[in-house]
Amino acid sequence: MPVAMSQVTCGLPKIARNRRQLASTINHSLFKPEVVRDRIIQLSEEAISFGFAAVCVNPCWIGLAASVVHGTGVKVASVIGFPLGASHTSVKRFEAQEAIRVGAQEIEMVINVGALKSGERRLVQSEIESLAALTHNNEASIKVILEMPLLTLEEQILACQLCVAADVDFVKTATGFQGAATENDVALMRGVVGDDAGVEVAGEICTVAAANAMLDSGADRIGTIHSVAIITELAALESNQALSIQPA
Amino acid sequence: MPVAMSQVTCGLPKIARNRRQLASTINHSLFKPEVVRDRIIQLSEEAISFGFAAVCVNPCWIGLAASVVHGTGVKVASVIGFPLGASHTSVKRFEAQEAIRVGAQEIEMVINVGALKSGERRLVQSEIESLAALTHNNEASIKVILEMPLLTLEEQILACQLCVAADVDFVKTATGFQGAATENDVALMRGVVGDDAGVEVAGEICTVAAANAMLDSGADRIGTIHSVAIITELAALESNQALSIQPA
Repeated sequence: MPVAMSQVTCGLPKIARNRRQLASTINHSLFKPEVVRDRIIQLSEEAISFGFAAVCVNPCWIGLAASVVHGTGVKVASVIGFPLGASHTSVKRFEAQEAIRVGAQEIEMVINVGALKSGERRLVQSEIESLAALTHNNEASIKVILEMPLLTLEEQILACQLCVAADVDFVKTATGFQGAATENDVALMRGVVGDDAGVEVAGEICTVAAANAMLDSGADRIGTIHSVAIITELAALESNQALSIQPA
Repeated sequence: MPVAMSQVTCGLPKIARNRRQLASTINHSLFKPEVVRDRIIQLSEEAISFGFAAVCVNPCWIGLAASVVHGTGVKVASVIGFPLGASHTSVKRFEAQEAIRVGAQEIEMVINVGALKSGERRLVQSEIESLAALTHNNEASIKVILEMPLLTLEEQILACQLCVAADVDFVKTATGFQGAATENDVALMRGVVGDDAGVEVAGEICTVAAANAMLDSGADRIGTIHSVAIITELAALESNQALSIQPA
């Protein structure tokens, strides 16, 4: 996508999306195990005040985050089988049920990478189908984390196809624990899923330019902890642009 | 422990333990999500032929590993709430039940680090007690992974005390995902738990010297993927020593 790339690499980034628009694509996400209660409250309050799509936390913090964002339109997302994906399907189901019960509206499940690489396509497929049905029956949405950095091209395409067949809401690039997903990963995923699913990109996305590049490559959701920095940078860019068009 | 340190740092390591003795302290461990079925079989066969204490795998591979080591004396270990520890207690319980049902004999649970750091001592305590009771009632043993690199000294001591109070079988230093545990971590843990629990150290322990140093610091179990390299190195050391005492 040369147009998108030139927006990113040539001088000041164009302001392709305003603050409200960009914020609405962001899952404000924090998975470090040492995060404390007060930081989860702060994270949830930031999601409200900046207008992020969702706050995304580890399962044990779902109830707390849900109590903060209740009634604001900000959703609560959480992770299942995270970050290794190497749990039993029965455990992923139980974990998802518990997550939804205490307030999660978006369930992000890591696929069983080892099973996929062992040729156990039916296990991977039935697991995705099972979690998609469970979440949809409980009025939650399902994202499937593919861990693109670990997959061959063939595995990447197959994983996306299995997700479309299972009617998932989103495919997500990676956990962030096994290397960063790229714009190419996003473009490939969008290529396979077309309009049948959303594409979320996760990782060290720290700037307005990086966020816009991912969106221009085909993502419609960004999972990052640098959300506040990104929107603060965009506010400064908008302010500079407003000054530059004032009459001399 | 100056004696232990001098063994490690001065020239060739002394052969403090023979191959059988050293192998019997090792959990042959592999948690990478991309590991495939054939590698799990190989890992389990290595555990048998080298005489390791246990083969330690992600939950989805427990059944396979158990089928390979069945009847050999090698145990199957697996991990719960791994590596973030930030699951609900109910999910950790379900995960442990499933793990034991399909063949795990050693359950390694990661504590809820964020709860500990938030001052939620009762949550951490009741979770450890709950998992200890569950595993013991099902003839499995429980190890609690403390994630020492993330804890303050006060938290490290408290976590060890809670484990002793809950009658756990082992405290384990770390997951390996949040930095490496040190000989000092091992010594501190041994200092707190005394004879009331075993101490397992995990991480990038690659050599005979490093393994002996950890054991000399107070560990009685080592979790590593470098098990075969360590025992192969020891075999070479033993062979060299045997040659050096031959008459000229």
